[in-house]
Amino acid sequence: MITTRRKLAWGECDPAGIIFYPNYYRFMDEATWGMFASVGYDAQRMRAENFSLPLVDSRCEFFSSPKFGDEIELRSQVSKWGRSSFSLTHEFVIASDARLLARGSESRVWCRYENGPGTPLKSVPIPPDVRAALGAP
Amino acid sequence: MITTRRKLAWGECDPAGIIFYPNYYRFMDEATWGMFASVGYDAQRMRAENFSLPLVDSRCEFFSSPKFGDEIELRSQVSKWGRSSFSLTHEFVIASDARLLARGSESRVWCRYENGPGTPLKSVPIPPDVRAALGAP
Amino acid sequence: MITTRRKLAWGECDPAGIIFYPNYYRFMDEATWGMFASVGYDAQRMRAENFSLPLVDSRCEFFSSPKFGDEIELRSQVSKWGRSSFSLTHEFVIASDARLLARGSESRVWCRYENGPGTPLKSVPIPPDVRAALGAP
Amino acid sequence: MITTRRKLAWGECDPAGIIFYPNYYRFMDEATWGMFASVGYDAQRMRAENFSLPLVDSRCEFFSSPKFGDEIELRSQVSKWGRSSFSLTHEFVIASDARLLARGSESRVWCRYENGPGTPLKSVPIPPDVRAALGAP
Repeated sequence: MITTRRKLAWGECDPAGIIFYPNYYRFMDEATWGMFASVGYDAQRMRAENFSLPLVDSRCEFFSSPKFGDEIELRSQVSKWGRSSFSLTHEFVIASDARLLARGSESRVWCRYENGPGTPLKSVPIPPDVRAALGAP
Repeated sequence: MITTRRKLAWGECDPAGIIFYPNYYRFMDEATWGMFASVGYDAQRMRAENFSLPLVDSRCEFFSSPKFGDEIELRSQVSKWGRSSFSLTHEFVIASDARLLARGSESRVWCRYENGPGTPLKSVPIPPDVRAALGAP
Repeated sequence: MITTRRKLAWGECDPAGIIFYPNYYRFMDEATWGMFASVGYDAQRMRAENFSLPLVDSRCEFFSSPKFGDEIELRSQVSKWGRSSFSLTHEFVIASDARLLARGSESRVWCRYENGPGTPLKSVPIPPDVRAALGAP
Repeated sequence: MITTRRKLAWGECDPAGIIFYPNYYRFMDEATWGMFASVGYDAQRMRAENFSLPLVDSRCEFFSSPKFGDEIELRSQVSKWGRSSFSLTHEFVIASDARLLARGSESRVWCRYENGPGTPLKSVPIPPDVRAALGAP
């Protein structure tokens, strides 16, 4: 599990004073990139090796809304491993008391641009070192 | 059904040259506000009457990715009506050829701030004129 | 002069209920792309011909703040023409009464990627058809 | 001087693979809030005491563009102190080698909502403890 913390910024909140909800998805996307970076596949390498992780779907349930200035903790992990496809769960809590804010998920596919950035994407097997480092069974 | 069109902006796309996916949720939220504005409940009135439409959950499936400059059409409608809760579906297509891009949904609750903005929210019945104007059964 | 209108969205406003100011710059950038698209240089063509318009600087003065739901009008024009460099002014007003909201500017350079996207940028002369269509002296 | 670091996210970059420039302003705004939080005036207190820091203008010069995954350092300080108004400078560098990316500024006014959030703002003197903590002469 990868844990990231951030203070919710003024500009990430709406006129109700709480998080503007698409930001949850922005944070999930950032955590997913961070997770793969943490096992050696950072953005530069992903780019250089023509890898991309397109989404199949994403989802989020909302339980309680953080306000600007709140420190939120995001707990992200791969919850399902396929050959190329995988799912992640992202749990958002208030850092100080672990109050549950939201629970999100993403389904993605490990892909490679066939002929460099912008060309068609083809699913490829998730690299074995990624699977091992992230505890795939 | 409410239809909105927009050209996908440069800054709404990521280094892969396609839509940065949280923007789909931003567009859904904007369409939902627009839908209620179209039947007399614009942002100012919602605010003045202490109404808010918090989310229970949101979801999106992705089929094909628009690039910057593409004109996309968003078709939004209420797909389920409860007493206070309701669900919306949002279908994204390329405006020129109706190619399906993504299909999203939101579950929301019609609520009122008990004592003005920032105070606790309480679910209230969806106003009858809203239901009628949007074709609730 | 290119004029664009937009309703300020809920998610483009901050907890004070007014525009989150970086959005002004987002709108300027979008208007600049729209201006060149209007004279035949849309995003696809810019990309295909390896053109890019990097910024030298940008600025904005703020006079009055729009709230969510306000319709704002943006009036954009090239205010200074060099060989490769040019400046734009962007004036934001409330659409209904022309109340001045903000006045921004951007300095940009017409450039070309020397060897395709991602390679070094080199300034090149602004195409004569662009200059003519936008009224350069 | 307040120093903050962040990895530039995938979604903060545009199809050219570099920072989408309005994000610089987003980072400046966040750093400004962080600076005042660091001397006891966090978002909650600002809100509770009806303080707001509206902008008069903002500006940024761009020298070099970070790519996604780059760690950037932002060095922010108050560069000019008036009775109510003040200016900040924000210098962006690559964290690893201090390469200059951009230099921004903001002019703001210390204000108070006369009758609570949403009511007219009136400039008030910058609190003496803020001035002292941030090294005003």
